[in-house]
Amino acid sequence: MHGGDFLLTWQHGIEDIRAVLLVAEVLEEMHRAGLGAQVFSGGLAVSNFRDKSTRTRFSFASAASLLGLTPTDLDETKSQISHGETVRETANMISFLTEVIGIRDDLYIHEGHEYMKAVADAVEEGFRAGVLAQRPAVINLQCDRDHPTQTLADLLHLKRTFGSLDALRGKRLAMTWAYSPSYGKPLSVPQGVIALMTRLGMEVVLAHPPGYDLLPEPVAQARRFAEQSGGSFTQVESMDAAFRGADIVYPKSWAPLRVMERRTELLRGGRTDALDALEQECLARNAEFRDWECDADKMRLTRDGKALYMHCLPADITGTSCEAGEVAADVFEHYRLTTYHQAGHKPFVIAALILLTRLEHCGQTLKTLIERGNHHKL
Amino acid sequence: MHGGDFLLTWQHGIEDIRAVLLVAEVLEEMHRAGLGAQVFSGGLAVSNFRDKSTRTRFSFASAASLLGLTPTDLDETKSQISHGETVRETANMISFLTEVIGIRDDLYIHEGHEYMKAVADAVEEGFRAGVLAQRPAVINLQCDRDHPTQTLADLLHLKRTFGSLDALRGKRLAMTWAYSPSYGKPLSVPQGVIALMTRLGMEVVLAHPPGYDLLPEPVAQARRFAEQSGGSFTQVESMDAAFRGADIVYPKSWAPLRVMERRTELLRGGRTDALDALEQECLARNAEFRDWECDADKMRLTRDGKALYMHCLPADITGTSCEAGEVAADVFEHYRLTTYHQAGHKPFVIAALILLTRLEHCGQTLKTLIERGNHHKL
Amino acid sequence: MHGGDFLLTWQHGIEDIRAVLLVAEVLEEMHRAGLGAQVFSGGLAVSNFRDKSTRTRFSFASAASLLGLTPTDLDETKSQISHGETVRETANMISFLTEVIGIRDDLYIHEGHEYMKAVADAVEEGFRAGVLAQRPAVINLQCDRDHPTQTLADLLHLKRTFGSLDALRGKRLAMTWAYSPSYGKPLSVPQGVIALMTRLGMEVVLAHPPGYDLLPEPVAQARRFAEQSGGSFTQVESMDAAFRGADIVYPKSWAPLRVMERRTELLRGGRTDALDALEQECLARNAEFRDWECDADKMRLTRDGKALYMHCLPADITGTSCEAGEVAADVFEHYRLTTYHQAGHKPFVIAALILLTRLEHCGQTLKTLIERGNHHKL
Repeated sequence: MHGGDFLLTWQHGIEDIRAVLLVAEVLEEMHRAGLGAQVFSGGLAVSNFRDKSTRTRFSFASAASLLGLTPTDLDETKSQISHGETVRETANMISFLTEVIGIRDDLYIHEGHEYMKAVADAVEEGFRAGVLAQRPAVINLQCDRDHPTQTLADLLHLKRTFGSLDALRGKRLAMTWAYSPSYGKPLSVPQGVIALMTRLGMEVVLAHPPGYDLLPEPVAQARRFAEQSGGSFTQVESMDAAFRGADIVYPKSWAPLRVMERRTELLRGGRTDALDALEQECLARNAEFRDWECDADKMRLTRDGKALYMHCLPADITGTSCEAGEVAADVFEHYRLTTYHQAGHKPFVIAALILLTRLEHCGQTLKTLIERGNHHKL
Repeated sequence: MHGGDFLLTWQHGIEDIRAVLLVAEVLEEMHRAGLGAQVFSGGLAVSNFRDKSTRTRFSFASAASLLGLTPTDLDETKSQISHGETVRETANMISFLTEVIGIRDDLYIHEGHEYMKAVADAVEEGFRAGVLAQRPAVINLQCDRDHPTQTLADLLHLKRTFGSLDALRGKRLAMTWAYSPSYGKPLSVPQGVIALMTRLGMEVVLAHPPGYDLLPEPVAQARRFAEQSGGSFTQVESMDAAFRGADIVYPKSWAPLRVMERRTELLRGGRTDALDALEQECLARNAEFRDWECDADKMRLTRDGKALYMHCLPADITGTSCEAGEVAADVFEHYRLTTYHQAGHKPFVIAALILLTRLEHCGQTLKTLIERGNHHKL
Repeated sequence: MHGGDFLLTWQHGIEDIRAVLLVAEVLEEMHRAGLGAQVFSGGLAVSNFRDKSTRTRFSFASAASLLGLTPTDLDETKSQISHGETVRETANMISFLTEVIGIRDDLYIHEGHEYMKAVADAVEEGFRAGVLAQRPAVINLQCDRDHPTQTLADLLHLKRTFGSLDALRGKRLAMTWAYSPSYGKPLSVPQGVIALMTRLGMEVVLAHPPGYDLLPEPVAQARRFAEQSGGSFTQVESMDAAFRGADIVYPKSWAPLRVMERRTELLRGGRTDALDALEQECLARNAEFRDWECDADKMRLTRDGKALYMHCLPADITGTSCEAGEVAADVFEHYRLTTYHQAGHKPFVIAALILLTRLEHCGQTLKTLIERGNHHKL
């Protein structure tokens, strides 16, 4: 992984995935033991959020601070990017002392990943030409295809919950659509979940109403991985069917692919009026599937009625954050702190991705840090 | 104080107040002697400004940088808080590697302090559940009730000016309303001043025009503290009466409580039109008390005509920043650099609050830092 | 330079200029060799961008991070500056733990430099009065007169390209206006270039269409410096004349001085309607000089057809970022990576300015850093 980027989990072998989890766990244990991890003495960790973010924003800043880097946000409204600057130029201009560039670009379907690739190509060119003394790693903080820092944190959560990655073999995970009174939610989490969890020999079940299909690529990856790993990947047509016998449920809303495509077109064209109409249409369509709510009845269908509930947060909670949403208030409250634990792995996953892409001998460096035993608080 | 928060000075014993001042002074002396104070090796210092700020914003960032933390601002417009995320969730999501959360929430009367308590409760819950490896301290950077980092800096200023805390015993401090051509200024500074200075045996006099009452709680605290400390707390009805014989004057505008309450209602309701009407009404009311200006004549009423003038800044200066305001230009200019000194204690007060809440043995750590003698500049 | 500011290159002797370049080169070599340069243990590096910025913003943050300072942006929209706070007060309020204040103020002609001087005077006063424990250096990140961090990076680029500063003697540099379909571009780059490059014995040629004159002061400085250094400063009336025999070309658009003056007036008056009219008029005027484009034909006029092309970026590239602009796409592409190298010196120039203004014995400190040999990556 040294010298490269981290854009899509399915571009990496399973040994990379295992390495990320291992390093993240070591960093997390070190932090809980009060050990510092200042690997860098200065240098920037640049973030570029092209969509709103709280937890990923703070996870990225936390990872940077943990490792001794200075988190710096590229706010495109305050830059000169507006007047005709190319991606490859900007990518180099922000990278003279930069170790990592984290990007969220999930609003435009078929475009987010392409943008990240363009940034990665640009810093690669700059590094090879000697413009940059170091080659910043580009890390995907959510694109139109994948959300690797989320799904790797999810996987680490499963590893900790079930004891080991091997213990996940044969476990049934229901990745299902859920009703939400909002529209335009990215597809990257369900896509990333099915394309990652199938690699661990899990039985991954995907469920969504008609029309809420995911991008073909991650679905194909999920099929391929299930075959390779001895797990399975199946699609069913109701939340009930997906939940039946599940060890883990991940009920989460997303927009229909076709809607995301029209939305991307309209956003590009600045068609605000048409966007409003699209939203109304989409909300009306969503409303047909109001019963796709994770409530106590549905939870009773899972293995012993005790499946692990997962969510990338924030969840649309019926009666709390909306009138009717993805999950019933009692179910969510039961698992609330568990979802916080799930989220808590993300800063360490991001830190692990930075170390593995930026250090030649990551393991050796961690060993040195531990041997030194410097506390992060005097 | 270790493991807790700092929300209202009157929730803390006088020994806590003395400890904060002492640690702040030590840090200030260390800084002036060129000694570094990097207690932390990474970790976030999160600020959440729900109202504009310059000096507190920079004081917080300065304190963080001084101690080795990474200042990070939670900009609610860039987060997902907008779509239905609860305070307790966000509080945990920003805290996985966070040592301190500084909050300014002074726009909504009866609400700011409640918000801070909710954040503190949330991180306490997260810490106890093992979600957070450390329990961030919540520090009040100004709420509807108190502005402790301001008033503690004010008190340190008095300590330095008069030589010691004991020397403040019997000193007369006039906390008085002053005219300003603006409206909606928080009540937290006068409330915080009367509830803190009465604890040092000072003779605190509060003056304001009819209708400009403060919240009952800090007024009651002031009365109680004056009794306990052997000082006094009195209320008079003119600036002249307050200034007479005063050793210290603190003339500062604030809004009538009733106006803040209506304003809070209207802001919550998004009633922009009614807000404009309220502003006009309030400005008209203020204008009846234009003579509440701290000018040379009023200063002559003070002890030997030489009282110490204090202001939390920025002041509305007649003829400089407005046509008629809180203080005459010549009076302000005479004390201008003094008010800068007053403000200069704030970064160190904040740093002291961080150390006292986050370290088990703050004194020992400071001793270690001093013995090491590392300079903050190579 | 210790204890002072860096506002205009022509306020400094040539030995200062040489020192900046030397320190910048040492820092750059150290960085490429993997050596850290954490001179400071905490402290703020405040930036105040009153106009958009990408590369200078990141250069400043990079320099701060490299040296161990915390970059902190003063966002005037989030501060209380709006309600009548004076420059001298704010300057002190943000400086209690601040080592450097970098300012960009290039929108208002005849005002940017004055603002920087006011900030510098204020922190000088605060330092002398003991308000500030240290005297932050004010560094010009582009004003109405000069853009020293750009032109010093440019000069370092020339030094590296031609081998030494002495090798620049007699080299012909064409600083010429170029067509752009935008208006209101600052004059500071051409002004800074002619007033700096003439000091190295270069033959500096300035060309622009009638009406696009620069401010008299830097032009006078250029004349004076050319005389002193044995170089020359001439003005010609076409891009062709300037390019003929040039070793270096710097074709870049800027607004007519008279337009900047009217624009400043209108911006101050909030006259949006009149601003639009001015823009139209200005664009129409620019369009008369569409042939001021740096294309392959013009490049053939330069020495052996191989002059070094320079630009401060972003360039208006014909057919790439606009229909017709400052430079033809093939010319720009040929020199693209070269312009990235040019830009890459800026973080180190800023770091050098910080060290030279803030350290008493900068050379000794660098020697200590190199001897210690601490790597910036564990």
